[in-house]
Amino acid sequence: MKTRAAVAFQAGKPLEITEVNLEGPKAGEVMIEIKATGLCHTDEFTRSGDDPEGIFPAILGHEGAGVVVEVGEGVTTVKPGDHVIPLYTPECRECASCLSGKTNLCTAIRSTQGQGLMPDGTSRFSTLDGEMIHHYMGCSTFSNYTVLPEIAVAKIREDAPFDMACYIGCGVTTGVGAVVNTAKVEIGATAVVFGLGGIGLNVIQGLRLAGADMIIGVDLNNDKKPMAEKFGMTHFINPSEIGEDIVPYIVNLTKRRGDLIGGADYSFDATGNTTVMRQALECTHRGWGMSVIIGVAAAGAEISTRPFQLVTGRVWKGTAFGGARGRTDVPKIVDWYMEGKIEIDPMITHRLKLDEINHGFDLMHEGKSIRAIVEY
Amino acid sequence: MKTRAAVAFQAGKPLEITEVNLEGPKAGEVMIEIKATGLCHTDEFTRSGDDPEGIFPAILGHEGAGVVVEVGEGVTTVKPGDHVIPLYTPECRECASCLSGKTNLCTAIRSTQGQGLMPDGTSRFSTLDGEMIHHYMGCSTFSNYTVLPEIAVAKIREDAPFDMACYIGCGVTTGVGAVVNTAKVEIGATAVVFGLGGIGLNVIQGLRLAGADMIIGVDLNNDKKPMAEKFGMTHFINPSEIGEDIVPYIVNLTKRRGDLIGGADYSFDATGNTTVMRQALECTHRGWGMSVIIGVAAAGAEISTRPFQLVTGRVWKGTAFGGARGRTDVPKIVDWYMEGKIEIDPMITHRLKLDEINHGFDLMHEGKSIRAIVEY
Ligand SMILES: [Zn+2]
Ligand SMILES: [Zn+2]
Ligand SMILES: [Zn+2]
Ligand SMILES: [Zn+2]
Repeated sequence: MKTRAAVAFQAGKPLEITEVNLEGPKAGEVMIEIKATGLCHTDEFTRSGDDPEGIFPAILGHEGAGVVVEVGEGVTTVKPGDHVIPLYTPECRECASCLSGKTNLCTAIRSTQGQGLMPDGTSRFSTLDGEMIHHYMGCSTFSNYTVLPEIAVAKIREDAPFDMACYIGCGVTTGVGAVVNTAKVEIGATAVVFGLGGIGLNVIQGLRLAGADMIIGVDLNNDKKPMAEKFGMTHFINPSEIGEDIVPYIVNLTKRRGDLIGGADYSFDATGNTTVMRQALECTHRGWGMSVIIGVAAAGAEISTRPFQLVTGRVWKGTAFGGARGRTDVPKIVDWYMEGKIEIDPMITHRLKLDEINHGFDLMHEGKSIRAIVEY
Repeated sequence: MKTRAAVAFQAGKPLEITEVNLEGPKAGEVMIEIKATGLCHTDEFTRSGDDPEGIFPAILGHEGAGVVVEVGEGVTTVKPGDHVIPLYTPECRECASCLSGKTNLCTAIRSTQGQGLMPDGTSRFSTLDGEMIHHYMGCSTFSNYTVLPEIAVAKIREDAPFDMACYIGCGVTTGVGAVVNTAKVEIGATAVVFGLGGIGLNVIQGLRLAGADMIIGVDLNNDKKPMAEKFGMTHFINPSEIGEDIVPYIVNLTKRRGDLIGGADYSFDATGNTTVMRQALECTHRGWGMSVIIGVAAAGAEISTRPFQLVTGRVWKGTAFGGARGRTDVPKIVDWYMEGKIEIDPMITHRLKLDEINHGFDLMHEGKSIRAIVEY
């Protein structure tokens, strides 16, 4: 069949909106009609050419929601008409990683996905001239219709609006999950969030959901404050305005009654800046502070600290897709949204048609959008 | 009263064995007759002058066992005749750290202890000429009699031999505790221990106690192999003999049936070398590998890695005193020794009299001792 898609033919070039060929689902695969997709920094990281592992031509997009239209042989867990969210982190429930019970990083299809291919080593996408087009992060939601492995599809409730559910496919789950799954923040905790973009806002609402007492947001841009407060931020710090190093500033701010030391119970880096990652670790509490890296750093960048920071009880962690097992946890996050436990609506700041998708990346660069989505 | 002690008058000089004055215990303090004390690398780190925070003159030693001879006003938890282990990490059970339930790093007397003083800001030790001598790590077990705060004394069973129990005051608890309290290693785990000195051996026996399946020891010295095997090591690696980088070597060695990736479930650095600390992190399994830093690094040395290592699920931690709450956990480790769950005897390789204590540091430098102890 044919479908409309935004194709990244070359690194650094605008996406081209065009018709492409899409083969139907093979055994164990599912075809989905994408109804809405978010534009994420990771898409732009690849489109721009900054991602050293980027492959072209490809159909980008990994944050979508849609409806199953056709299933391949042997598919049992979803059927045509089901509402679903594509998963760039699949959940096979059979590999050593899934069975470990310790990680969400399923490895069943990791190598083919990394090569922009379906698990059988081929692509379902091609140009009308017959040139192969790669899949992207196993999702390719910048195509109106796409094909995914069954293990990479989360079935969600049918009353969830696509234009909100799509954001759960990446940003919401990443931020909320970092709090709930990776850090396992407890009621009454103190926490710091570095970077108040879309991920940071979702960390903040995750902290509110987890019952944190003090939710400190850190950003160089004061304009981020009102929205972050709306999602639960209790204290705002602009590092350029405090007149001292941010680490002792936060340590002091988080000192509880009867505590001689101070430091946040939890911190989250949503900046991707390795200097900030170090500050995030070092501002946590001696003895138990936990710092979680969410942001993706520049290729080759390294984090550093003195081992004394860890020997005195701090823990350094990271999170991918918020530690969420896609098929198990994503439907729960959709429920949380529908039950009003988390908010998404104010974060969807721009709605575009597929033809306008390149404008969405402009909005991202201008810092004007929290999330721009494309509705098909 | 007077007591014999080995005094560190100056950084870099041999200890001087001499009589010193010791004041009796003040309120909340306990006087202990030390029966045996181990010589630890940390004592030598301070004696040598390498420790930038070293204070002189001082009576070193922090790994001892003895008998309570006198208690100050208000002391209720120990009485004369009780067998005890001095604790350089106290457990007050009342400070914010103790009450957090998340750390063993009690902060009740941290600042005075760091200054070589009792909690009231004074010292109980002085030269016969009246010059003040500092306490060390709150213990000063290189004195036949010493005074400690009640909260820094663990009461142990009376049938435990002092010449074995003393090692539980530091090395045994640090190594075994890193496994049991900090990493919480589970049955069937794969683990790597970097550095097969005294701490490394205790990590190894901690892993055996925890039921680890694969216990890999790494050391540049092949002579360490037989003793490590005696304590439970199942595989030995000399990094200079494998002809490839140790990280992929370990990742491959730890690959389980059905696992496409490999990597150790847990790793422990007992070398203090920051390059090794990085290898220890990076050889752990994607998704859940945990690396624990035990070794004390050179002043100013830093650890580094790519944040990707953490984002893909590895956890970087440290441990101090094996995460053990001194008064609660140390008596249990003494029980484990008495019940045959852990071994200590083969690690006590040299027995000295106080007069011979400087020879003990020579043995340490020559790599001839696992643990040399002084018996009073
Ligand atoms: Zn994304
Ligand atoms: Zn899996
Ligand atoms: Zn020690
Ligand atoms: Zn305490």
